[in-house]
Amino acid sequence: MSTTATDRPVPSDRTAPERKEPVYAFTEKAVAEKSEIARRFLETRTRLNANVEKANNFLVKRFYNLDHNTYLEGTLPAKTKELMGLVASACLRCDDCIIYHAIQAYRLGAPRAEQEESLNVALVVGGSIVIPHLRRAYELLEELYQ
Amino acid sequence: MSTTATDRPVPSDRTAPERKEPVYAFTEKAVAEKSEIARRFLETRTRLNANVEKANNFLVKRFYNLDHNTYLEGTLPAKTKELMGLVASACLRCDDCIIYHAIQAYRLGAPRAEQEESLNVALVVGGSIVIPHLRRAYELLEELYQ
Amino acid sequence: MSTTATDRPVPSDRTAPERKEPVYAFTEKAVAEKSEIARRFLETRTRLNANVEKANNFLVKRFYNLDHNTYLEGTLPAKTKELMGLVASACLRCDDCIIYHAIQAYRLGAPRAEQEESLNVALVVGGSIVIPHLRRAYELLEELYQ
Amino acid sequence: MSTTATDRPVPSDRTAPERKEPVYAFTEKAVAEKSEIARRFLETRTRLNANVEKANNFLVKRFYNLDHNTYLEGTLPAKTKELMGLVASACLRCDDCIIYHAIQAYRLGAPRAEQEESLNVALVVGGSIVIPHLRRAYELLEELYQ
Amino acid sequence: MSTTATDRPVPSDRTAPERKEPVYAFTEKAVAEKSEIARRFLETRTRLNANVEKANNFLVKRFYNLDHNTYLEGTLPAKTKELMGLVASACLRCDDCIIYHAIQAYRLGAPRAEQEESLNVALVVGGSIVIPHLRRAYELLEELYQ
Amino acid sequence: MSTTATDRPVPSDRTAPERKEPVYAFTEKAVAEKSEIARRFLETRTRLNANVEKANNFLVKRFYNLDHNTYLEGTLPAKTKELMGLVASACLRCDDCIIYHAIQAYRLGAPRAEQEESLNVALVVGGSIVIPHLRRAYELLEELYQ
Repeated sequence: MSTTATDRPVPSDRTAPERKEPVYAFTEKAVAEKSEIARRFLETRTRLNANVEKANNFLVKRFYNLDHNTYLEGTLPAKTKELMGLVASACLRCDDCIIYHAIQAYRLGAPRAEQEESLNVALVVGGSIVIPHLRRAYELLEELYQ
Repeated sequence: MSTTATDRPVPSDRTAPERKEPVYAFTEKAVAEKSEIARRFLETRTRLNANVEKANNFLVKRFYNLDHNTYLEGTLPAKTKELMGLVASACLRCDDCIIYHAIQAYRLGAPRAEQEESLNVALVVGGSIVIPHLRRAYELLEELYQ
Repeated sequence: MSTTATDRPVPSDRTAPERKEPVYAFTEKAVAEKSEIARRFLETRTRLNANVEKANNFLVKRFYNLDHNTYLEGTLPAKTKELMGLVASACLRCDDCIIYHAIQAYRLGAPRAEQEESLNVALVVGGSIVIPHLRRAYELLEELYQ
Repeated sequence: MSTTATDRPVPSDRTAPERKEPVYAFTEKAVAEKSEIARRFLETRTRLNANVEKANNFLVKRFYNLDHNTYLEGTLPAKTKELMGLVASACLRCDDCIIYHAIQAYRLGAPRAEQEESLNVALVVGGSIVIPHLRRAYELLEELYQ
Repeated sequence: MSTTATDRPVPSDRTAPERKEPVYAFTEKAVAEKSEIARRFLETRTRLNANVEKANNFLVKRFYNLDHNTYLEGTLPAKTKELMGLVASACLRCDDCIIYHAIQAYRLGAPRAEQEESLNVALVVGGSIVIPHLRRAYELLEELYQ
Repeated sequence: MSTTATDRPVPSDRTAPERKEPVYAFTEKAVAEKSEIARRFLETRTRLNANVEKANNFLVKRFYNLDHNTYLEGTLPAKTKELMGLVASACLRCDDCIIYHAIQAYRLGAPRAEQEESLNVALVVGGSIVIPHLRRAYELLEELYQ
């Protein structure tokens, strides 16, 4: 809402140069082999995203692109931002988003204790309504970090 | 969350050609002269946005740009999409966003009854927790449509 | 969303007979004299509601009516339901709604400890994001129960 | 919360006369035959609503009735209001509500592009947390508009 | 957020003495035998909680403990607070939480009409977005109160 | 909701030993002298918290204590967790919470770019409804990092 932005070319800016693709310690395939919850999530996402891509909706593609750029290496490490995505997902209570960001953080080398501490922030900020999601998140963590 | 989009150039697509800037029946200045609530909102927004623009944050600019593109003339008229923005803002309960989209819909020629019907959808979907925002929205409508 | 209800006359039902207006221990005027926060809230609400009533919107009036009926004496005492409205308002984080239901519960004779226990449920369910609203609610309780 | 409405008969008002039942291009049965997702949703809803109706709760029936009235033909076409219901459902992230309003908009003749533009408003207002719901909505659109 | 609390020992206070474990009319086992929905919920919860407990996370345990203390007998009866938990769960739209508190209220002797009135508060405060959850809640009530 | 925790003494656990109070680069007083927004927030919080403390509510004190413990130095640095608190606060849209965590992150040495990147995660996850809060957050950042 309520922006003044226009469609003209975006000028160069100071934070842009720092952003770059993170280096993953594990592929999505390796994660899927380790965790059944991850495997089912990744398969469903791939299938549904194929359908979204087929629709070729301009704004959806722009949003996906923007979303992708948000979690690149920057001033903050990609791993930290994926953990922040986990916090946001848990306190907004979206299981798919929780699984996604927990997998991403795992792929970027976050130890289990960092995932738990991130979930603690979400639990305290978001309250007991977060608990059912926390329980399911711990089930995933158990599979990922066995 | 959970996209597969990458940073490569976005290919042409079918919906893009239809989008264009809407034609406003009233300027923001005219709205500010008619409504004190609108005037205060627009002044504060201008002041704070100047500060945001000064920061020149790449992702914020991209988001503002995407946000701007969402409400252009498309398959649905810009006016309808501003009213949809009003519905979303009211059921997510953000006064600033409500004021912004109500002003935009007014500038695009929406009669008061259309604003009220849109707010009714938000009220029924969102429940009585929307009522304090509805009351403030009606105060703005009273000033705009006097 | 997604109902099958139609506009035909609603048949009699088992819960209807039990509902009746509650008896208040205090008038809104008495509350306004005791608490400055309550006074300002009630004045603003009265002014804004006059504006909403002038608009004479059919669905808004129906919703207000339904809302009114929800808190009548029923199987549960009106006081209990106002405290439930307080819980809902606090965990959905609406200051106006919190003030309204805290005033109603006070008018129906709820002691301060019942208001605090209700707010505790909202705090634990809703998390630390509720705390700023809790602080403002305690300011009101201080004025009401001095 | 916080209304002054009472239970007395509601006087006539200006917007009431305009409301009337919309004319659907497709029956729910036809939709269920076209889309498996729709069929499962409609069957579950029918089964659960039968149970709710059996309970014969006065306020639930009043709410269902009010809900029904919100989406009738009015100043805004029923189709537009169903699309608004879709926007509200998507940004509040309720899959059942998304499916319901997408089906309703389809039954009222909304082309797929209008559904996508409505979802875009929800995506931009509501953020990436909406994406999992968007993906599932596109799966339904694919079945409905094949 | 934003507290000034520190880790020193908490001094005695006036509300603490009143809190004590409630007396349940039914065990979880009895509830699971009566309702298939309850049974599946309780089994899944037990399995997932075992996993959470194994992780032995300090803050999660503290939060679970605090959560437990919130619903003890106090100034308000435990039953009333479980019904408040139901209201909060329904207007925040968490099916697991709704099932949990409805079961707890049932175990503490709440008749079905009290559960329905509590859900009505949530429906009116939270709006039609609550309806899918209400439908599922009524399915549970049907099984519990047959 | 739905825990099995009891009131017995909590056994020792592996994450507890690592938690300790963070070392702040700036006092709250120094922050208040630098930023008028911070000063007003801190004054109001102090005044309202005094009132909450006077009430001496057992559960509120326990919750404040738990909240305090969540942001101590642990596996993740306190600064990172305050930035996570900022993300959670921004996507749940609580201005007071945003101001609090932005101040805390500042006091722990977070440069402005880290605050902006954290807010970007909240913006993308939470959508344009976050923008009014982002604007106000940038106003605070401008004062803190001048």
